[in-house]
Amino acid sequence: MIITITREFGSGGRTIAKKLADKLGYAYYDYEIVQQIAQESGFAKEYIEENGEDASSTSTFGFIWNNYGYNLSDELYVAQRNVICELADKGNCVIVGRCSDYILRDRKDVLNVFIHADFEYRKNRVVSVYGQNEFAPDKRIKDKDKRRIAYYKYYTDRKWADAKNYQLCLDSGVLGIDKCVELIEKAM
Amino acid sequence: MIITITREFGSGGRTIAKKLADKLGYAYYDYEIVQQIAQESGFAKEYIEENGEDASSTSTFGFIWNNYGYNLSDELYVAQRNVICELADKGNCVIVGRCSDYILRDRKDVLNVFIHADFEYRKNRVVSVYGQNEFAPDKRIKDKDKRRIAYYKYYTDRKWADAKNYQLCLDSGVLGIDKCVELIEKAM
Repeated sequence: MIITITREFGSGGRTIAKKLADKLGYAYYDYEIVQQIAQESGFAKEYIEENGEDASSTSTFGFIWNNYGYNLSDELYVAQRNVICELADKGNCVIVGRCSDYILRDRKDVLNVFIHADFEYRKNRVVSVYGQNEFAPDKRIKDKDKRRIAYYKYYTDRKWADAKNYQLCLDSGVLGIDKCVELIEKAM
Repeated sequence: MIITITREFGSGGRTIAKKLADKLGYAYYDYEIVQQIAQESGFAKEYIEENGEDASSTSTFGFIWNNYGYNLSDELYVAQRNVICELADKGNCVIVGRCSDYILRDRKDVLNVFIHADFEYRKNRVVSVYGQNEFAPDKRIKDKDKRRIAYYKYYTDRKWADAKNYQLCLDSGVLGIDKCVELIEKAM
C-alpha cells in the first residue's frame, strides 16, 4: 500500500507523513527522493529542493531553461517521476508531495491524502518550525502557495486543492496532527 | 456539535449523514428543513426541493424572478438560512447540504464534511437509488453538478469542491459508506 501526502506549506503534512510511516512501519520518502534524483540525474540537491515541487522564484516564466533552450524544469520532473515510480514499486511507503498523487494515478494500491490548514495556523507553524528569516511569514506562505499551485497545475493540469483529486482531505489546523495520522490509518 | 454534510449528487452523502445521525443519536435535518421552510415562508415543498440547493433548470439566468421583478431565489435562500440557523441553535445535529457549511461558518461547534465520488460510482448509484427516468444517468449527474456548483458559487462565493472549505473531505466511492461514517465520527 502506498500513501501520498500532498500538503500546503506550513500545514504539518510532512510531520503527519513521518508519524504515519513510523506508526505503520512503512518506508518514508521525502528527502530520500531528493538524494536519489541527485544520484541518478546529476542535478544538485539544493536545485532539486528549490525546484522539485514549486515553480521557480527566479524565472519570469516560472520554469527554467538553460542557455541552449533546454527545459531543465521538465528534465527534473521526469527524473523525479522515475524515482517516485521506482520507490512505489518497492512496496509499502508514504511519499511526500512532488505530484506523487498524479504520478501514481494508475496504480490501484494508492491512498491520496491532502493536508491543509488555515492561514493563521500555518503562519504560526512556519515560524515555530522553520524559524524567522528575512521575509515575513505572510509573504513566505503566499509565495510558496503560489509557486506550488503553479507547479502542480503545470505538470498535472489539475487544481491543487480540489477535493476530487484525493480520497481524503484533512484540515490539520482544526483536527490536529495526531488525529490526522489516526484518520489516515483508519481510512486505509 | 453540528455536522454539515455537503455532497455530490449520487455520492451517498445523504445516506452517510443519516447513518451518522442514527449512530450518534443526533437530530438529522434534510427533508425536515424543506418542511419547516414551507411552513415559515409559504413556498411549496416541491418548489423548495427543486430550487433550494441547485440553480434553476428553467430560468435562463439560473435564478428566478417573479413578474414584478422580485427575486424569489434570494427569498428562498434567506428563508432557508433562517431555518438552518434555528435548527443549529437546538443542539447536536447533522445537516445535509443547502450551503449549511457556509451559513454556519461563524460558529465554533461545526464540523464541515464534503462527500464526493467518481463519475462511474455515482452513475451506478443514481440508477440503483433513484431508479431510471427519461434522462440518462450521465446527463442527470452532469446537470445536477452544474446547477449545484452554480448555486453554491452564487450564494457563498466559494468554489464547490475546494478542500479548504471543509475540515474533512471523503471519497465515498473508494472508502465506502460505512467507512465514511466511521471517519467522520472519529474526526469529531
